[in-house]
Amino acid sequence: MSDEIFIRRTLSLAKRAQGRTSPNPMVGAVLVKNGRTIAEGYHKKAGTPHAEAVALERAGEKARGATLYVNLEPCCHTDKRTPPCTGRIIASGVRRVVVAMTDPNPKVSGKGTAELRRAGITVVSGIEEDRARTLNEHYIKYISTGSPFVILKTAMTLDGKIATPEGESQWITGEKARAEVQRLRGSVDAIMTAIGTVRMDNPRLTCRIRGRRSPVRIIIDPRLETGPDAQVLSCPPDTVVVTRKSGPAGKKLLLRQRGIDLLEHQQDRVDLAWLMKTLGSRGITSVLVEGGASLNSSCLESGIVDRVMFFIAPKMIGGRDSVPVVGGRSYRRLAEAHRVVGTKIRRLGEDFLIEGLIEK
Amino acid sequence: MSDEIFIRRTLSLAKRAQGRTSPNPMVGAVLVKNGRTIAEGYHKKAGTPHAEAVALERAGEKARGATLYVNLEPCCHTDKRTPPCTGRIIASGVRRVVVAMTDPNPKVSGKGTAELRRAGITVVSGIEEDRARTLNEHYIKYISTGSPFVILKTAMTLDGKIATPEGESQWITGEKARAEVQRLRGSVDAIMTAIGTVRMDNPRLTCRIRGRRSPVRIIIDPRLETGPDAQVLSCPPDTVVVTRKSGPAGKKLLLRQRGIDLLEHQQDRVDLAWLMKTLGSRGITSVLVEGGASLNSSCLESGIVDRVMFFIAPKMIGGRDSVPVVGGRSYRRLAEAHRVVGTKIRRLGEDFLIEGLIEK
Repeated sequence: MSDEIFIRRTLSLAKRAQGRTSPNPMVGAVLVKNGRTIAEGYHKKAGTPHAEAVALERAGEKARGATLYVNLEPCCHTDKRTPPCTGRIIASGVRRVVVAMTDPNPKVSGKGTAELRRAGITVVSGIEEDRARTLNEHYIKYISTGSPFVILKTAMTLDGKIATPEGESQWITGEKARAEVQRLRGSVDAIMTAIGTVRMDNPRLTCRIRGRRSPVRIIIDPRLETGPDAQVLSCPPDTVVVTRKSGPAGKKLLLRQRGIDLLEHQQDRVDLAWLMKTLGSRGITSVLVEGGASLNSSCLESGIVDRVMFFIAPKMIGGRDSVPVVGGRSYRRLAEAHRVVGTKIRRLGEDFLIEGLIEK
Repeated sequence: MSDEIFIRRTLSLAKRAQGRTSPNPMVGAVLVKNGRTIAEGYHKKAGTPHAEAVALERAGEKARGATLYVNLEPCCHTDKRTPPCTGRIIASGVRRVVVAMTDPNPKVSGKGTAELRRAGITVVSGIEEDRARTLNEHYIKYISTGSPFVILKTAMTLDGKIATPEGESQWITGEKARAEVQRLRGSVDAIMTAIGTVRMDNPRLTCRIRGRRSPVRIIIDPRLETGPDAQVLSCPPDTVVVTRKSGPAGKKLLLRQRGIDLLEHQQDRVDLAWLMKTLGSRGITSVLVEGGASLNSSCLESGIVDRVMFFIAPKMIGGRDSVPVVGGRSYRRLAEAHRVVGTKIRRLGEDFLIEGLIEK
């Protein structure tokens, strides 16, 4: 039981750096001797010391004979800015290492724990693994596929509508739900939307939490219709406009002169799987989709979505003419429906949040 | 604090007769002396003794000096099959009476407690009143307005759809959610649907729980299109078909010959508020609406709905062409949306139930 308790502590520590570690995972470490914590640490940011190094540094000589708890298998490769943790752990005299999960990074993936075992250290793995996997779901997807983890987020009424027929959608949900969306924005590398939402709501799509960086904005705009006064073009941070190669050259030049990054595609409609691969190759490990009915539908159909987060307001606007949360074409049979697994539900003020993973 | 505990016990006792007391409320009673329960009772069915009478009968002479807990103000009128409870309570020698709520029945409404007080009994009222009001929400609505309490129930996907474009809707939710719907059917006087659902799903609309009676079925069918093989016409219990006065006389005669009750309206479309009043005048205190997009929309627009119960499956079918949970015309502005208050959420297997009261 106490292994679980200390591993949970590593998860809490790891989470302190949420939104700051990309492309690295969130990792926390706890050193325990005679049942008492002697040092803790977590990975604060890519390029800074790993959690294990922080805790071992703090413990110094006291680490000898202790148990090290860490939510991810310690790294053993030198292909990065910081030295491998395995060597450091072995040198410290730690006697036992408990990890929540092996590192899905093919450069580590069991090699880290194997190295520790070879050095005579007892290694226990798989403690609170589910929680650990959920915490680092962005990292796991990215490191194993090269594509970012995609979260589809929407705010809808209880009857599944995201806007009136006139497009009024601000605000469907209340303050607490919107504050949660801010936290969500602060935890991803990019936010993606489409031209329809930009034209209707003219959102900033920034994270307004102090101390959190705003994610990169990805705007899907095949015909380059984003107006020059759109907030996504005029306020920080960076914006990537995804558009057709055959689009108007003059407009493209103007956007480039304003520092907007253009990502061009050959076909009329962008291939979203290709787009995700491309964003992944640029180091984007997670994408939050905040679009309308059509983008939601395209994302689900293309299979890029990993998690859905439905913020549900206790309201009903009804109507076949109002805007449904998922547009496009329906699946013809119930059996073909996307299934959401590992669901969780939470109250956020008057609203609810239902979330889960898309079954693949 | 102990008053709350014993009142909660009366609520549990009362609930044992759920679905069997209509048009009466559900009532439980507990007699307590020196902090210990000496007798309990509940109202089992209209026409049988009231909860207070059952408990007092069981306690006999021991009731003297005791406290009587009851979730509804004891009755004082003689306009029914059983004698008034107030006289019996006074005669029993009970010293204190604790009630959760006053009886909204204008024939009682404070007169019951006043009579007890005049007889020198200490009366405390308003303990766990919210729970007590929720338990008897059907009765409260009916006794104060003459119209039944209306529950709009639906089973939908997470994206607010109740059927594929082809009308496939069986089954969106899983077994536990469907079992809950059975319990719901067993707790109301009537189920209402419309011809569209009858034609698409040919449901029986019965309660399949042993020992529970099935509610009366109300079928809205303006043009009398229900086919002769529709299950709602051929299996028990009673069915009322609501149809236009100007409809086909031959068909009407055939239905009447089969024992189907016809309720005729003058206009092309039925006035749902009128229909509820009419059902109320026939002693129906609660109606469960199990229809499709159009009926849901009409019920919400007409203002007859008191409670909504949305069973939500963790699936998405998407599409502007699939069937939304609420059809008809949308409200034009978010501010006009129906608001749901006092919301509750529950997990039912893989599914969720979000329910609440329509703010009037």
